Amino acid sequence: MKNLNCIFKPKRVAVIGASPDSKKIGHQILKNIIEGGYQGEIIPIHPSADTVLGYKAYRSLSDVPEGVDLVVIAIPAVLVVKAMQECAQRKAGAVAVITSGFGEVGNMAEEKKLKQIADENNIALLGPNIFGLAYPPNKLNASFGPKDIYPGRIVFITQSGALGIGLMGWTFMKKIGLAALVCLGNKADIDEEDLITYFNKDENADVLLLYMEGLKDGRKFLKTRIEKPTVVLKVGRSSRGAKAAASHTGSLSGSDKIYDGVFKQLGILRADTFIEAFSWARALALPLPKGEDTIIITNGGGIGVATTDECEARGIKILDDPEWLEKKFRSTMPDYGSTKNPIDVTGGAGVAGYEQALKIAFAEERIKAVIVLYCETAVTDPMDISRAVKDAFEKAGRNKPVVVAMVGGDRTRDALVYLNENYIPASSLVDVSISALKAVYRWAEIKSRTSSKPVIEPLPSQAAKILDAVRAQGRDILMEHEAREVMEICGVPTPPWGFAKSVQEAVQIAESKKLYPLAMKIASVDIVHKSDVGGVVLNIRDSQELSEKYEAMMARIKKAMPDARLLGVNLIKMSSGIECIVGITRDPQFGPAVMFGLGGVFVEALKDVSFRVVPFDGAEADRMIGEIKAKKILEGFRGMKADKPSIIKTLLAVQKLAPYVKEIDINPLLTNQEGSYAVDARIVLNMDSSAADPHLVKDDEDIEIPSASL
Amino acid sequence: MKNLNCIFKPKRVAVIGASPDSKKIGHQILKNIIEGGYQGEIIPIHPSADTVLGYKAYRSLSDVPEGVDLVVIAIPAVLVVKAMQECAQRKAGAVAVITSGFGEVGNMAEEKKLKQIADENNIALLGPNIFGLAYPPNKLNASFGPKDIYPGRIVFITQSGALGIGLMGWTFMKKIGLAALVCLGNKADIDEEDLITYFNKDENADVLLLYMEGLKDGRKFLKTRIEKPTVVLKVGRSSRGAKAAASHTGSLSGSDKIYDGVFKQLGILRADTFIEAFSWARALALPLPKGEDTIIITNGGGIGVATTDECEARGIKILDDPEWLEKKFRSTMPDYGSTKNPIDVTGGAGVAGYEQALKIAFAEERIKAVIVLYCETAVTDPMDISRAVKDAFEKAGRNKPVVVAMVGGDRTRDALVYLNENYIPASSLVDVSISALKAVYRWAEIKSRTSSKPVIEPLPSQAAKILDAVRAQGRDILMEHEAREVMEICGVPTPPWGFAKSVQEAVQIAESKKLYPLAMKIASVDIVHKSDVGGVVLNIRDSQELSEKYEAMMARIKKAMPDARLLGVNLIKMSSGIECIVGITRDPQFGPAVMFGLGGVFVEALKDVSFRVVPFDGAEADRMIGEIKAKKILEGFRGMKADKPSIIKTLLAVQKLAPYVKEIDINPLLTNQEGSYAVDARIVLNMDSSAADPHLVKDDEDIEIPSASL
Repeated sequence: MKNLNCIFKPKRVAVIGASPDSKKIGHQILKNIIEGGYQGEIIPIHPSADTVLGYKAYRSLSDVPEGVDLVVIAIPAVLVVKAMQECAQRKAGAVAVITSGFGEVGNMAEEKKLKQIADENNIALLGPNIFGLAYPPNKLNASFGPKDIYPGRIVFITQSGALGIGLMGWTFMKKIGLAALVCLGNKADIDEEDLITYFNKDENADVLLLYMEGLKDGRKFLKTRIEKPTVVLKVGRSSRGAKAAASHTGSLSGSDKIYDGVFKQLGILRADTFIEAFSWARALALPLPKGEDTIIITNGGGIGVATTDECEARGIKILDDPEWLEKKFRSTMPDYGSTKNPIDVTGGAGVAGYEQALKIAFAEERIKAVIVLYCETAVTDPMDISRAVKDAFEKAGRNKPVVVAMVGGDRTRDALVYLNENYIPASSLVDVSISALKAVYRWAEIKSRTSSKPVIEPLPSQAAKILDAVRAQGRDILMEHEAREVMEICGVPTPPWGFAKSVQEAVQIAESKKLYPLAMKIASVDIVHKSDVGGVVLNIRDSQELSEKYEAMMARIKKAMPDARLLGVNLIKMSSGIECIVGITRDPQFGPAVMFGLGGVFVEALKDVSFRVVPFDGAEADRMIGEIKAKKILEGFRGMKADKPSIIKTLLAVQKLAPYVKEIDINPLLTNQEGSYAVDARIVLNMDSSAADPHLVKDDEDIEIPSASL
Repeated sequence: MKNLNCIFKPKRVAVIGASPDSKKIGHQILKNIIEGGYQGEIIPIHPSADTVLGYKAYRSLSDVPEGVDLVVIAIPAVLVVKAMQECAQRKAGAVAVITSGFGEVGNMAEEKKLKQIADENNIALLGPNIFGLAYPPNKLNASFGPKDIYPGRIVFITQSGALGIGLMGWTFMKKIGLAALVCLGNKADIDEEDLITYFNKDENADVLLLYMEGLKDGRKFLKTRIEKPTVVLKVGRSSRGAKAAASHTGSLSGSDKIYDGVFKQLGILRADTFIEAFSWARALALPLPKGEDTIIITNGGGIGVATTDECEARGIKILDDPEWLEKKFRSTMPDYGSTKNPIDVTGGAGVAGYEQALKIAFAEERIKAVIVLYCETAVTDPMDISRAVKDAFEKAGRNKPVVVAMVGGDRTRDALVYLNENYIPASSLVDVSISALKAVYRWAEIKSRTSSKPVIEPLPSQAAKILDAVRAQGRDILMEHEAREVMEICGVPTPPWGFAKSVQEAVQIAESKKLYPLAMKIASVDIVHKSDVGGVVLNIRDSQELSEKYEAMMARIKKAMPDARLLGVNLIKMSSGIECIVGITRDPQFGPAVMFGLGGVFVEALKDVSFRVVPFDGAEADRMIGEIKAKKILEGFRGMKADKPSIIKTLLAVQKLAPYVKEIDINPLLTNQEGSYAVDARIVLNMDSSAADPHLVKDDEDIEIPSASL
């Protein structure tokens, strides 16, 4: 295990490339380390200078006594491997390679070499291609970004250089407090999962915020344990954006929809913009709400309405009990005020009205979260409102979340800063404040989940036998009856059905299994589009009709395709219900992922689907179903209602097949009050056994798969 | 016609209630007028003071020489009517009533009295219940908001007091330049339409921005002509928010979905947040784009990807021609830069790279809009980038739109302010800048529309006769065959069909009209749910089957409902196609509105519908169809495709019925390659003839309706 303390809590830091020339990046980094107030030993390395910025310089790291904790390398790319070797010789604990010109420009060989040296010598390697790192609790700023960092409790991990530096300046201006700042760059060694794991245990960090363009190892990321609130801003949501990100970072793209599913299943909150990400990060230091009922205190009706809109749009529940509210809040306002929530203490109320209303809001157990709004007026200093909020919050022992939105000029700006400095999320933008409160609610939901360690259940040996047999025939696509049989064995609910090789057998099966009314479909490896050759007959009602239609179908097909080998027919009991779709797809980043969606037009025209990466458990499957935009239809619609337990069962059962397939497409999965039925399933095997599943065959306790006959 | 110049360009302004007591609102207003630098005559009115703030005061307006342009009234509500009468006596041109305590607290009587005096004396009346108004081009600040207003070319009209005052401070801080600021309050007289009409002709105004909680007279608002870019921020989007807004303002609520349709058909851009509204307002002073291809210039890959995402999400087209881009932009950047659009001149490029790239971007005709991104670095001052953008833009003669997003600290903030001062929209938030550019594109689309003045076409007399006959029977719901007949007469495409009173007639009609396969449905005023009594038979294929099924149906129903009067049957040729829905609903604000949506689950579960208020033309109907989220389905899907012209025809034809109905519901309207078919229509008449349509019977050229027999 590499020691990341050497990066963030080093006692000795060396900078290779610490030039006396102020234009050089190495110089800027050294200067930031010195001016940032770092208290440990500072060691400039430069081939000719005797001192740099007043510190004794060494010609080479080899001249420095052994055991430097952190070495920052900022020299031309061609010299970096040699410098890395010196780091190994001198037993450095960690190395941050600032220099670019490695993987991102196609120079994979030297990047691999760096990684190899790091691994062989147990060195934690950050970069290459980064602007550095900072750890304000130790006053360490080993970056060539701005000198000043506003100290706080948020860890900001950025893949991007330019945006990261820009945001350093922005966070300082906005007084967003950072516990750490890390640029990941090419991630030759240290990646997101390493840092999250490290900061989970770091006493100075409360919240983690990641800016991400793409992962290098999706399967490793899946092992991340989220223990502290973690926000991710991942760009490349759009198809063109994803392409740009892939070309910019050189990483595998992976589907953004599947990234989205991964963030959800890990319990990471995904933000869409950086203002949202940072405002969430700030808000996530709040106490968690103990329920839903929220109250809005305002001095203006209009902003109250706008806030109500935002709450409804985001699913934040506004306390709605006019009588109780009237009783509690009437005394806080003039006659023309409103107790209807928004609690409108009115513009004339001044600080006193807010103070009273806030006291009640924090004291009443029924109120679970508090939103404070204020429009600046001439008569009341917004700073007084801010102080009132802070005092009430603290007097109540910070017992429930509170967010603030204020609209006004310079005095309002100062009042907002004051609140944020006191760990009360405040903004001049209503939507930003409400979205931050929603993030707190979402984190509370994530925290409430019982932890589970899902595994892929073993493929039943009978199913494995069928897959083996298909492969042995050189086929990669299962025939309909094979697919339905495999589904059934794995525990996917199917409609009653049978496979018959003759008309006699068909009648016998249909009667004994009570399949009427049934659909009959031809079974032949040679026929792909069954309907085109009249190979599908629906709504067969009895045995006489079955016999007639069977013979007619066989005659028809023999005429149309004389050479087709006809194996028999599938007989499937007709069922009705809401059309769903369940599938497995294989993502270049994350491996097999399960898809759920409403079938028919919803999937095809609206892409109304959700994803989770294998393996996941029933609770996750349940959430996955709940993400569908058209989920109302599942909840009961036109006399039809989904049977959720059997859908969940399906989503769990198909995972057993994940290691062995390229693709599964259950379409439709019909669902009604009584159950769900995989009417038709297309299963395509992964034939490339050597690369069958590079991810899943790793020795990896979390995502280990059982052995199977394949 | 009232003279609004008296409000905004007065030569003499009196303030009734201009107290020497600095706590009084009248004092604050007078102070703002004086300190704002107003150059006209200033007349304080106060019952006892001789001078106020150094100006000679009068005991009463009656003591002041005749012909004050603007009188501001800020005295207790009980005294306001009397003061208004004095204004009339002294021939004031305009009155702004600051005082609250009128309609908003249920005091309708006195508010009506104010309006009556205003109308009788041709006084333009603003308010009551407002914080005032300001017109910076004349240095007039007649409000009790902040003293300072940043002058510019945006007109800000606000219904809200508290939020309006708060935003006054915010716009000053953000240097958002205002040409006027008007609080509307209770809108006893002057309303949104009056102000938009006035500022359409005002030489100091370029862009209008309205903050709206609810209209008082929706039909009047529909007559608004949008001549300058107009942005609206309307709150009350959510059901709870709408309720709060209605209770706060006392106005009729009206459906927010229909408000949305109204804004669209008038060509008003609706923003969701005030930061969006103001950033759009700023951007709308830009030149309009002459096409779609947009270019992104950046110094960072990450922010480039984020911007690409935003562009794709908002439908802004990124120029995509790698070879051409490489040829044009390669020289502007180091080797490791990217010409792929985002054009990444890289962090090392400095100002020179931007200058070169900007020059090309503005010079090349192929490039229609420019997005500039910048992440602050230590080496380049963001102000230099801002200057480069401004210089390039101006040298090119401001020939195409440009927006900027920059991320960084204080220096970046200054650089952003500089751009905004120079009428280049710039923000630290990528999404805000891109949304502003999209607003410019949307305004360009609105400007490109050929103006039309839609009218409701007269109801054909045959249709009127049917409606009359139904009413004469005391019914308000048309029977199925009546409804289909009316539709047909009005020009709504229907499937081939007939109405038969006997089995012989049924067979004859079915054969002569070639209706097979057909659906047969019982016609009886006594039967509401036809299916429940076996009154619907589908898929009848020939005359023999028709005869049998006819007799069987009649026997069945006579048994089930012996007293039902059976008039005959509807015979409708079966058709297939995409299910749509077309309806008319009656909004309390806007009167009859037409709805379009995809039928079935889409309407019921997803509320995927769009609205327009009657009357509207074919181009508008076309846009209305294009707003459906699931519109992909109409464009061609699973072998089905909508016939748009016949859908448009339907949306136009139903408008003829709008004045006479409470509700129409064509469900389904089936559409396929060959046409559209109103299979079933429910028409409910508006029986309350005296209040049949208070809006539509006004003497009103724009929305005049033809006389009909009803």
